[in-house]
Amino acid sequence: MAKKPNKLKARLPRGFADRSADDIRATDEMVSKIRQVYERYGFDPVETPAFEYTDCLGKFLPDTDRPNAGVFSVQDDDEQWMSLRYDLTAPLARHVSENINEIQLPYRTYRNGWVFRNEKPGPGRFRQFMQFDADTVGAPGVQADAEMCMMMADTMEALGIPRGQYVIRVNNRKVLDGVLEAIGLSGDENADRRLTVLRAIDKLDKFGIEGVRLLLGEGRKDESGDFTKGAELASDAIDTIIAFVSGSGQLENAGIDELKTMAEIFAACGYGSDQIKVDTSVVRGLEYYTGMVYEAELLFDVTNEKGEVVQFGSVGGGGRYDGLVKRFTGRDVPATGFSIGVSRLMTALKNLGKLSASDVVAPVLVTVMDGDTEALGRYQKMVQDLRTAGIRAEMYQGNWKKFGNQLKYADRRGCPIAIIQGSDEREAGELQIKDLIEGTWLASESTDVDNVTWRESRPAQITIKEADLVDTVRGILDAQAEDRQRAQEGQ
Amino acid sequence: MAKKPNKLKARLPRGFADRSADDIRATDEMVSKIRQVYERYGFDPVETPAFEYTDCLGKFLPDTDRPNAGVFSVQDDDEQWMSLRYDLTAPLARHVSENINEIQLPYRTYRNGWVFRNEKPGPGRFRQFMQFDADTVGAPGVQADAEMCMMMADTMEALGIPRGQYVIRVNNRKVLDGVLEAIGLSGDENADRRLTVLRAIDKLDKFGIEGVRLLLGEGRKDESGDFTKGAELASDAIDTIIAFVSGSGQLENAGIDELKTMAEIFAACGYGSDQIKVDTSVVRGLEYYTGMVYEAELLFDVTNEKGEVVQFGSVGGGGRYDGLVKRFTGRDVPATGFSIGVSRLMTALKNLGKLSASDVVAPVLVTVMDGDTEALGRYQKMVQDLRTAGIRAEMYQGNWKKFGNQLKYADRRGCPIAIIQGSDEREAGELQIKDLIEGTWLASESTDVDNVTWRESRPAQITIKEADLVDTVRGILDAQAEDRQRAQEGQ
Repeated sequence: MAKKPNKLKARLPRGFADRSADDIRATDEMVSKIRQVYERYGFDPVETPAFEYTDCLGKFLPDTDRPNAGVFSVQDDDEQWMSLRYDLTAPLARHVSENINEIQLPYRTYRNGWVFRNEKPGPGRFRQFMQFDADTVGAPGVQADAEMCMMMADTMEALGIPRGQYVIRVNNRKVLDGVLEAIGLSGDENADRRLTVLRAIDKLDKFGIEGVRLLLGEGRKDESGDFTKGAELASDAIDTIIAFVSGSGQLENAGIDELKTMAEIFAACGYGSDQIKVDTSVVRGLEYYTGMVYEAELLFDVTNEKGEVVQFGSVGGGGRYDGLVKRFTGRDVPATGFSIGVSRLMTALKNLGKLSASDVVAPVLVTVMDGDTEALGRYQKMVQDLRTAGIRAEMYQGNWKKFGNQLKYADRRGCPIAIIQGSDEREAGELQIKDLIEGTWLASESTDVDNVTWRESRPAQITIKEADLVDTVRGILDAQAEDRQRAQEGQ
Repeated sequence: MAKKPNKLKARLPRGFADRSADDIRATDEMVSKIRQVYERYGFDPVETPAFEYTDCLGKFLPDTDRPNAGVFSVQDDDEQWMSLRYDLTAPLARHVSENINEIQLPYRTYRNGWVFRNEKPGPGRFRQFMQFDADTVGAPGVQADAEMCMMMADTMEALGIPRGQYVIRVNNRKVLDGVLEAIGLSGDENADRRLTVLRAIDKLDKFGIEGVRLLLGEGRKDESGDFTKGAELASDAIDTIIAFVSGSGQLENAGIDELKTMAEIFAACGYGSDQIKVDTSVVRGLEYYTGMVYEAELLFDVTNEKGEVVQFGSVGGGGRYDGLVKRFTGRDVPATGFSIGVSRLMTALKNLGKLSASDVVAPVLVTVMDGDTEALGRYQKMVQDLRTAGIRAEMYQGNWKKFGNQLKYADRRGCPIAIIQGSDEREAGELQIKDLIEGTWLASESTDVDNVTWRESRPAQITIKEADLVDTVRGILDAQAEDRQRAQEGQ
């Protein structure tokens, strides 16, 4: 069997994706709104690079599907292992520890950036995604956690998510620690089992009470037949935990007191339980949380890939991690912070219709009728004149000989105006200007009475003096913008 | 010898760096100005992820110091090798090839993002850095290259670099190809040697004519004693090349014709040779260029790390790469584009004093005099009221018991105002407001007459009614902003 030589195939590794212009512009707009809230709260940006030494990152990822525990790692020249960051929290702890003598504590910072997970990719599950984090380091009090929750609520509202469509849910790991102690799971020797219990409870949204019960016991088999080993608790211990996460357990401990203080701060600042509420089922699946944990949840319904109507769910969360900096410094540096999943939040905003369509207008196209050097210089000069006047413009750069292709290009690209100058016009010192939006509009709504009036006042193609190029183009663009405005208001 | 247990050391791998708030804000401002120019030229954003399959990236990096040829690579589950992108051009070629049927050619796009090089790190030499690229794909004509050069010139001016302090230098690889053919270096079998010659010429800025002569011959030993093997050309061949790069060679070929056309377009559009000029010594060190190559160079003097005064030099460049997309599609898809080194350009702007100091004001600090829950709620409410009014504000989140620490924090952080409320003030429904900038100003310029008048109208500390908090704070911030404005104008 003769094998044909392989032509190089253009493809991306699974779990990675390109981003379109619309996607980039929408993300930028969203990120800018989030940043405004964080800045108002007194947070300043700080960023860390993509790589860290593997030992600095620590092993805090819940995913253990893969041999290298969910991270991308390479060995450096000096044989030390480096890994791409899997979140923005571990690198921040390293940054603070490295600069602990220069940094003024308490330290409020934010950052957005790409993180990498070497996980099994799946639909909507990426190996590179963007997180937007805010953290306060060196703040021991529950008021710092309270501030985080209020900032999350303000962020949701700044993005246009109405009250009632989101809620910030709060809990305290210490409360759960009390439960775990009650069922005999305290002590270092039980650390792994405690984590398994945490992750089981964290799946409540996904698998329901019965699913959690299985994960607390022998384990759970999913629809594909994959089996997840459980925490193997005795049935009375499982009952205690289930009672606790369904809110019917009774407890008194330090965690409860902190939650009460927090609730009073929310009340004093005018945040209602429709914005922030205590919920004992929130645990967050990461091991490093030591106190308050919180989660931003969106409450509106969406249809999932199986066709089921479900609540949109979590778009971000975080908690107190008093031990992460101590790993380096040996000294207590309490910290609290949260992370927003940028792509996931953007999907939510799309669903809610809260992402404004891009207001970027495609460029004015200067077409090419002659390809000699002198003509090219002349066309390019028109383009430069428009650009200098602040108008988006471009000269056709493809094969100019088929004029039809140029107009087809203008149409596909959504160009608002085409400029045409053949040899006749040039000799007369004139140009033709084609209003491409007007043309579209005529075709789609030609029975409209107003349209007739309007058509008379704005012909689809006019001949002008070369010197009037910039003013005429600006006039047509302004008129088109007014039409868009009118169309939006009329909706 | 007993070894102490290692405490985890907070450190970054060499060649990677954290970014400060000032750095992030300055980069954002610069990137936003560049983006405005590119958008006006009709370019739209498109982005690719950090990873590509290694075979898609190709081996176009000049650096061969390292065994894996300058890139970071990992092997995926399916045994395919993936690499972190080392530039933004190879991934764009993959993106265009993968979507060739959907993309409307000619395709003008831009993108900024991190790229990674697994090189030997050194002072100012990073293994992760930001590039800002613009490319036109599907444009065969020299007018597309001309547009790139004009866009680079406009970008330099939009960033505030005055005419005369920058120049865009242009050359054509075809001209050099003529020279190489003349000395018998055409044909596939001489590809490696041609590349060595290219890289030698590309070092003209760095090593001068004599250095290039050595690199074209046996090789060159640098100050540290490292030897770089040369192209081993005969001495008459070396003379021909040296004559060419010093502009004294005589040639007629297609490359020269294209350069002439380009020069005519620049003239027609009003770009002088103080902005864009032809320079036969420009070659660019990358193998994939097939026609025009261009480079943005800054002409002002800086002192380098050795204490020598040198021209700042290149901040970006690019050229025509008609073969990159063809690697995938098998069909001719001509393209041209350039890349700006964002950090390097920022260093240049700092040198020129063209980076405006950040206009972000530090937050107003609400201090904490009592730590009970009720008081915390009250302080936090003040902060939230200020934030709701759009004023940057924060409550002190450290240990509140030492009040001196709170004022020290405000001072180090540069807080403009501190709010104080002890139990006496609270009972009277009052607050104290401390103008911290006023205080600093008084201390530093107390002999100024105007200052005395001003001090009388703006006392350093006042007592107000709680209800007047927002208005008073806004009033003081406005007065401080006016002072800053006056101080700037007075300079």
